[in-house]
Amino acid sequence: MASQQRVTAAVLIIGDEILSGRTQDTNLNAIARFVGAHGVDLAEARVVGDVEDEIVSAINVLRERYDYLFTTGGIGPTHDDITADCVAKAFGVSLYEHPDIIAMMEARWGGEVNAARRRMARVPEGGSLVKNPVQGPPGFQIGNVFVLAGVPSIMRGMLEDIGHRLKGGAVVISKTLRIEGFGEGDMAAPLEATARAHPEMSMGSYPFYSAAGYGSQLVIRGRDAEKMAQAVRDLEAALTAAGISNITHLDSEQA
Amino acid sequence: MASQQRVTAAVLIIGDEILSGRTQDTNLNAIARFVGAHGVDLAEARVVGDVEDEIVSAINVLRERYDYLFTTGGIGPTHDDITADCVAKAFGVSLYEHPDIIAMMEARWGGEVNAARRRMARVPEGGSLVKNPVQGPPGFQIGNVFVLAGVPSIMRGMLEDIGHRLKGGAVVISKTLRIEGFGEGDMAAPLEATARAHPEMSMGSYPFYSAAGYGSQLVIRGRDAEKMAQAVRDLEAALTAAGISNITHLDSEQA
Repeated sequence: MASQQRVTAAVLIIGDEILSGRTQDTNLNAIARFVGAHGVDLAEARVVGDVEDEIVSAINVLRERYDYLFTTGGIGPTHDDITADCVAKAFGVSLYEHPDIIAMMEARWGGEVNAARRRMARVPEGGSLVKNPVQGPPGFQIGNVFVLAGVPSIMRGMLEDIGHRLKGGAVVISKTLRIEGFGEGDMAAPLEATARAHPEMSMGSYPFYSAAGYGSQLVIRGRDAEKMAQAVRDLEAALTAAGISNITHLDSEQA
Repeated sequence: MASQQRVTAAVLIIGDEILSGRTQDTNLNAIARFVGAHGVDLAEARVVGDVEDEIVSAINVLRERYDYLFTTGGIGPTHDDITADCVAKAFGVSLYEHPDIIAMMEARWGGEVNAARRRMARVPEGGSLVKNPVQGPPGFQIGNVFVLAGVPSIMRGMLEDIGHRLKGGAVVISKTLRIEGFGEGDMAAPLEATARAHPEMSMGSYPFYSAAGYGSQLVIRGRDAEKMAQAVRDLEAALTAAGISNITHLDSEQA
């Protein structure tokens, strides 16, 4: 079925501040959840510094390999903000000053738009704007690439103007069995047997420690509600047969 | 000078749970800070799912391109934990059950070490163990690749057994000028001029919003204390000449 086809995305995080450890990235997680809700699987992410060759090369690899690419960071006014230049280079097109952005800046800065700020008005030929409902200039889309801000609140605001542009597949649903008082090593065999019997589902184990000792959340992911229900029943039966009790069903995943 | 030579590292984060958005990664940031303190620059990071081909290919690209590679995740007992297999495949070697890990498990699990848990005792031929001071089996090193746990507290514990194995360059130092009440667009020109005059230093701008309105932290990074002092003086002079005041010096960076 076409609706079951996997649609994929990648994220490219651009910025020395992530690699130096100065800044804890949260954009990857926000984009992962956002695309997931639109039936798009985040399949890979990369973090590169403010280095033109590396950015251009990562853009070209990722936009060809996946259905969508989201970049974050590097679209401010300072000399180390080179994302727009890199995207244009990757696509082999020029940048131009978008008149709407210049008009917006003139309104905000009172006609005094200096060269540094004008850098933020540059978009590649053939690109379209991505609204920025928070503050500052918009992002842009060219082909299957969305170029977004690095500041998390602004990046998330920009996502609001992207959902309608995505053609997703069936949304991934997930169910979680939470088990307390048993180690992952006890669950591994029944989990693997169930996973083998349901090759369309993806199953993972995420251990934790609680007052009851070791435990794990066994997460089943898939796109078909009926097959999901069967997989959950099979997994619970396999766990019970292996002597595992204290199984709680969670509708959604919990960290 | 040899001590000024750049030593680089990459991080490979392995796990569907990061890409699905279930889990917010914090290991990248912890490793970035850790290697930075040892004079090693984190130059790239990638996140891939639990897919053998993608893991093997990323390991081989990154271990050849950088001086060190750190992987996190995928070393538990369940069927989706395939990192050890992938590392062995990338290096073209076999896995064997390490007798010390088996002994440790027998002590802990009372001789009842099932097949799933034995998976966690497998290390590649030619590898050495990385101590796990928190709980569970150790990680391992093979060549320039360190294979660490995905659970953040365990991963950070394992880093304690790695510092002495790294041959770092000169440690990067950084100074920050914090400016309140001016936009990045006002600072861009003096910042760029100073960056051009100090090609050995890296300079970046990280904007924020406060009670005083727009502001930014201008961060200078480098490896030479004398050149750093000169760059700080030059940047402050350039900012002042551009009419920017409210400049605070911070010894270290603040988020």
